Amino acid sequence: MSVIKVAILGFGTVGEGFYRTIQSHEEELKAVLGRKVEVAAVLIRNKQKERDINKEVIVTTDFTDILNLPQLDVVVEAIVDKDPTYSFLKKAIQRGCHIITANKEMFAHHGQELLELAKKHNVSVGYEATVAGGIPVIQTLRQLLNVNRVQQVQGILNGTSNFILTEMREKKLSFAEALRAAQENGFAEADPTNDVEGFDAFYKAMILSRLAFGEEPNWHDVERAGITSITSKLIDTAERLGLRFKHIAIIRKSGNQLTASVKPVLVGKEHPLYHVEGVQNAVNIYSDIVGQITLQGPGAGMFPTASAVIEDLVYVCQNRPVTQGLTPTKEINAGSQELIQQEETWLISSLLKNVNNYSINIIEHVEEGMFIVKAVKDEIENLFHQNGELLYYPILGDYDSESKLAKLAL
Amino acid sequence: MSVIKVAILGFGTVGEGFYRTIQSHEEELKAVLGRKVEVAAVLIRNKQKERDINKEVIVTTDFTDILNLPQLDVVVEAIVDKDPTYSFLKKAIQRGCHIITANKEMFAHHGQELLELAKKHNVSVGYEATVAGGIPVIQTLRQLLNVNRVQQVQGILNGTSNFILTEMREKKLSFAEALRAAQENGFAEADPTNDVEGFDAFYKAMILSRLAFGEEPNWHDVERAGITSITSKLIDTAERLGLRFKHIAIIRKSGNQLTASVKPVLVGKEHPLYHVEGVQNAVNIYSDIVGQITLQGPGAGMFPTASAVIEDLVYVCQNRPVTQGLTPTKEINAGSQELIQQEETWLISSLLKNVNNYSINIIEHVEEGMFIVKAVKDEIENLFHQNGELLYYPILGDYDSESKLAKLAL
Repeated sequence: MSVIKVAILGFGTVGEGFYRTIQSHEEELKAVLGRKVEVAAVLIRNKQKERDINKEVIVTTDFTDILNLPQLDVVVEAIVDKDPTYSFLKKAIQRGCHIITANKEMFAHHGQELLELAKKHNVSVGYEATVAGGIPVIQTLRQLLNVNRVQQVQGILNGTSNFILTEMREKKLSFAEALRAAQENGFAEADPTNDVEGFDAFYKAMILSRLAFGEEPNWHDVERAGITSITSKLIDTAERLGLRFKHIAIIRKSGNQLTASVKPVLVGKEHPLYHVEGVQNAVNIYSDIVGQITLQGPGAGMFPTASAVIEDLVYVCQNRPVTQGLTPTKEINAGSQELIQQEETWLISSLLKNVNNYSINIIEHVEEGMFIVKAVKDEIENLFHQNGELLYYPILGDYDSESKLAKLAL
Repeated sequence: MSVIKVAILGFGTVGEGFYRTIQSHEEELKAVLGRKVEVAAVLIRNKQKERDINKEVIVTTDFTDILNLPQLDVVVEAIVDKDPTYSFLKKAIQRGCHIITANKEMFAHHGQELLELAKKHNVSVGYEATVAGGIPVIQTLRQLLNVNRVQQVQGILNGTSNFILTEMREKKLSFAEALRAAQENGFAEADPTNDVEGFDAFYKAMILSRLAFGEEPNWHDVERAGITSITSKLIDTAERLGLRFKHIAIIRKSGNQLTASVKPVLVGKEHPLYHVEGVQNAVNIYSDIVGQITLQGPGAGMFPTASAVIEDLVYVCQNRPVTQGLTPTKEINAGSQELIQQEETWLISSLLKNVNNYSINIIEHVEEGMFIVKAVKDEIENLFHQNGELLYYPILGDYDSESKLAKLAL
């Protein structure tokens, strides 16, 4: 077989970017793979739309046409919807094709089944483009950290949310104004729910969890919150405290317990994600031998995502078997201190002015209705249940109230 | 063959870290490689020194003992000196062993010959630990960016220099005081020349160049400067201009021309390496499809380096052939603007108070004897030849003098 035949499902930003990159990097692909890559067919929805696709390529609205191609080696899926994409990919695997997907929602829901099916059929699965666009985080976890035991992954996985938080801080915009700026710049959809409510980051976090830990937490146990509660006033207070709001997905294994959250948190300038601004994405991986490494780069866009897909093409064409994501990684020695819930530092904001009435360890009264407290999570949640107006955000890392107070006094 | 037999040359920080990690991660290694890894022998220099090495391991001062082992699959080299290490590794390859090295000076000098020899003998070469410690930059360039054409690599590759620059800025220390702090913290040798004069970063840059571009520039054409010219006053001025001094290795291909420099430069807060502080290392890779990605992490230390070596062990045991680093990558379309030398922005500092007499485009008179100018490099160098007291540092990226002046006025 002297040619690798590829079908592309969907011809939006990702599909087209991939198609164009195959043309522009024909030589490189041939040099790496030893064979020419040819796009055999493209699945589209609307036949009327003009597209710049070579005449020899079959353009169809019917997946059966693709499945019935005489030769088909790789199916690249760049559709947004969860269904019927999943069933397409299942059929592709059953036909013996390697699959590559950029569809995070679908892969978060069906990744495990697809990986198991691929393993059974001895084909390979590429999903670098599902998380953090062009940053090779999936491949780093899959190919480069083989012996290291990953203990924690923290990531800024949604560029839209990060852009909004950055604009709010830098340009003193309200949430609504920053969202509008994001929409005007093409960084947010007309309906931004998926991004600003944390769903997009949640799906990506679940994909990372499966890869890094071989399992996912129960989805219902994952705290998921978006950035819509963050006001200019909160951003401003955080700034004065030397902190920044970041929407961070955290997946962590301690002992046999896997926990995850996807929500706004406060970080100080020592935190590896503090400086990640605008539409950039970044992932910080903590593993036992190397310690912390951070990968940063473009989390979206036509060519960064095409880069992820095309590097996956090399990966799957090397016929790499599915080995990760199927069984939980082994227990992590948690040490005794992990067995009880730990105190964390929180910024709480509320109408609850007489917070002193509650049995909670206040370490700083920042301003009216805003406090920094130390408490275990249950205490904070109790406080919340007693007072629905309460907003609370964990401060990651060490918080040095004395030096921060000195700053406030300046 | 049910066991992988490894010899370790050198039992300093890296050698011992690797040895201990093999013990602690025996299970993970077996799971990944499908075979047990056993350290068969350790080469040391001083037989009298107490070492915590299992009794079954041969500990010898004679490399011949190692070469004559009945089974030997991988030789891990963790010696500092260039010679006779090179000849040891040559012999190991000729015997059919995979080799792994952490020795940047040796590999910068002899990497190409070792890669060619390894290719001839069908063995694999791991050298992740030569550059940026635990950050998987070698593997990212080698395994993850296959189709992307790398155009530029920028890196903070020497933790000691970065630590000194950070301390000078944050704690207002002189160079001498910051160097002493580095030495007290174990981040600098008693003789720090190799670090602070840029030799260490230079070797690492040449290794990256070979990997990313398949060749190195002529070593004599590479501008190499350390950080010893950086005074507190310069750091202070930079700070007020919103800039930071960073010791950065830059390797860049434009057209068919490969250029490199390893020297202190000034960067603004938009530059991806601006926020890299202390002993951290970071590498920013610009390639044509994905754009910019940055990897950051621990550049040195027992376990970060051991991590690099042990992940290399997995790589070489997969019998990966040598494919990169042997022939130059193809020409990069430079566009017409690259053909003439471009104007850059520079901070120049000198006793040359009457700089107005020179035909140079001054865009800002920062303070007495300190100017920001725009000029092509030749002009700056001419100025330097006319006035040996002149110090000049390029400012990378856009420099917006208006907003900076406004800051200075604050």
